[in-house]
Amino acid sequence: MYTFNEILNFVNTHLDEELKSLQTRQPLGLYNPIVYAMEQGGKRIRPCLTLMGYNMFAKDMEQAWPAAMSIEIFHNFTLLHDDIMDNADIRRGNPTVHKKYDENTAILSGDAMSILAYEYLTRLNTNHNTQILQLFSHTALEICEGQQYDMDFENRNDVSVDEYLNMIRLKTAVLLACSLKAGALCADCSQSNADTLYEFGISIGLAFQLRDDLLDTFGDAKTFGKRIGGDIVANKKTFLLLKALELANTSQRQQLDDLLASDSIEEEEKINAVKQIFEQLNIRKLTEDLIETYYSQAMEQIESIDIPNEQKVPLIGLAKKMMQRES
Amino acid sequence: MYTFNEILNFVNTHLDEELKSLQTRQPLGLYNPIVYAMEQGGKRIRPCLTLMGYNMFAKDMEQAWPAAMSIEIFHNFTLLHDDIMDNADIRRGNPTVHKKYDENTAILSGDAMSILAYEYLTRLNTNHNTQILQLFSHTALEICEGQQYDMDFENRNDVSVDEYLNMIRLKTAVLLACSLKAGALCADCSQSNADTLYEFGISIGLAFQLRDDLLDTFGDAKTFGKRIGGDIVANKKTFLLLKALELANTSQRQQLDDLLASDSIEEEEKINAVKQIFEQLNIRKLTEDLIETYYSQAMEQIESIDIPNEQKVPLIGLAKKMMQRES
Repeated sequence: MYTFNEILNFVNTHLDEELKSLQTRQPLGLYNPIVYAMEQGGKRIRPCLTLMGYNMFAKDMEQAWPAAMSIEIFHNFTLLHDDIMDNADIRRGNPTVHKKYDENTAILSGDAMSILAYEYLTRLNTNHNTQILQLFSHTALEICEGQQYDMDFENRNDVSVDEYLNMIRLKTAVLLACSLKAGALCADCSQSNADTLYEFGISIGLAFQLRDDLLDTFGDAKTFGKRIGGDIVANKKTFLLLKALELANTSQRQQLDDLLASDSIEEEEKINAVKQIFEQLNIRKLTEDLIETYYSQAMEQIESIDIPNEQKVPLIGLAKKMMQRES
Repeated sequence: MYTFNEILNFVNTHLDEELKSLQTRQPLGLYNPIVYAMEQGGKRIRPCLTLMGYNMFAKDMEQAWPAAMSIEIFHNFTLLHDDIMDNADIRRGNPTVHKKYDENTAILSGDAMSILAYEYLTRLNTNHNTQILQLFSHTALEICEGQQYDMDFENRNDVSVDEYLNMIRLKTAVLLACSLKAGALCADCSQSNADTLYEFGISIGLAFQLRDDLLDTFGDAKTFGKRIGGDIVANKKTFLLLKALELANTSQRQQLDDLLASDSIEEEEKINAVKQIFEQLNIRKLTEDLIETYYSQAMEQIESIDIPNEQKVPLIGLAKKMMQRES
């Protein structure tokens, strides 16, 4: 068994080699932006999950590397195109690809990244190549669907908490789940273990995204890295806001509606006013409870995978770390 | 053996069914633009080529349909994203997707189309699934590279004829070649036949694109469907212009440079002046000769495929039709 840090080192070393090779491809105008996007780093959780899913059942991680690389490049592709759609200027402290280069470059380099993701998958040599390709395609489409729901929600005033949870399942959780399952399938594990690992990934993914929502409003500015309250300022329909809208009495609902509609209110004032309503409605606790529910589900799921407990230690450790994160 | 028209009917019928099924997927905001883009029709030459490549070696075309559908949806994806990059308003007589919907929709629905193309490929059940996936990924990346070169050329004044021919090979010819080879591989033909069919596709593709260049300047407005001279007005670096720049004497070069640089000249006047220089330099004949060279190559290539000649009749017929096209 490898520790999380050993796996992260493996990922970083292999990724650097892949980027070196991509850097030599022509035309540079297509491949340089790809390398730029991938070099920004990020947590690289997904390729680690693939290798951890693999390492629960087998040792030679080289076997699963093409799947890990595929998923990391696909994830970065979605960020790249999302940044165009959101008109975001900064990603991980640096200019986004469409700001550093231009929008056409960002569209085309993103397209090439999604193809490269598949190119890596076709290098796999496992007993489950077709199943992995189908899982990946299914997941990739779900991510597009999640992004579309997310954009649709911006123009809707009747989004339910359930719809929101489905959206974050599609936009975030399924790729974490796919990462784990693809790795496990590379190791030729049983279908039932692969499926349970997938469900574990969904639970952790939902908890992870809800934690993100929570930190954006109730995090510590020093450790969070982004400004606190960005979601509130942007009227983002997060779990916190949707739950508050669901629970609000008439007067609270009116206050929330006014705050969402106002374009004259100071940002800090808006953040504080919305947070006050959240406090009245116990939103922080309700969010923490739901995170805990998903986390407990995840722990039951990983419990039921039929391998010795010590082989689950690194993944349980990572899940804990993901739950305790402050940034 | 099926005739071209029988194959086209098969394509149209099957494609309509696929679109009906896509139309029921949620969210509609993601899938409706995909169906819209695919319903605009076009010549549907690529899926026909896949089925013709298949039908040269085997009968049950259902086997190859997922590959044909994959390639057609991928082709339409490239048109959709190219239209954003070129800021084109009209495609096949109707508003482009980013005009009918909006740019974010066009980016995301295009992304989903490229994934759907792979989803269809993973439905294949042939002896060469991995090879077909690798061929497709390789081709898809080449198309992105071709598009990048095409965009790079807009900002360069030293593009050579050879660079141009390489660009159209990547942007146009490889997908026609891939269509044929993927179909042939579905039919489990020999590697040597599959490779020769690929080379045939490259030759036909180059001839096809050069014919397009020629028609844009020397076609008949009535049958061409688009305005004549559009490439000249847009200073598009086609084979015609690059060959003229290569052959021009000092005075002709000066005239061409002035015409390319002027933003005050009337469009019709510019078209006529450039055409006059083309005539002086015999560009029309030189283009026709190169088309003929590629076409002859294609005929030699198809000749060398070791199956009875009657099985080559439909594909030779289509190649002839593609060369004689006036629109």
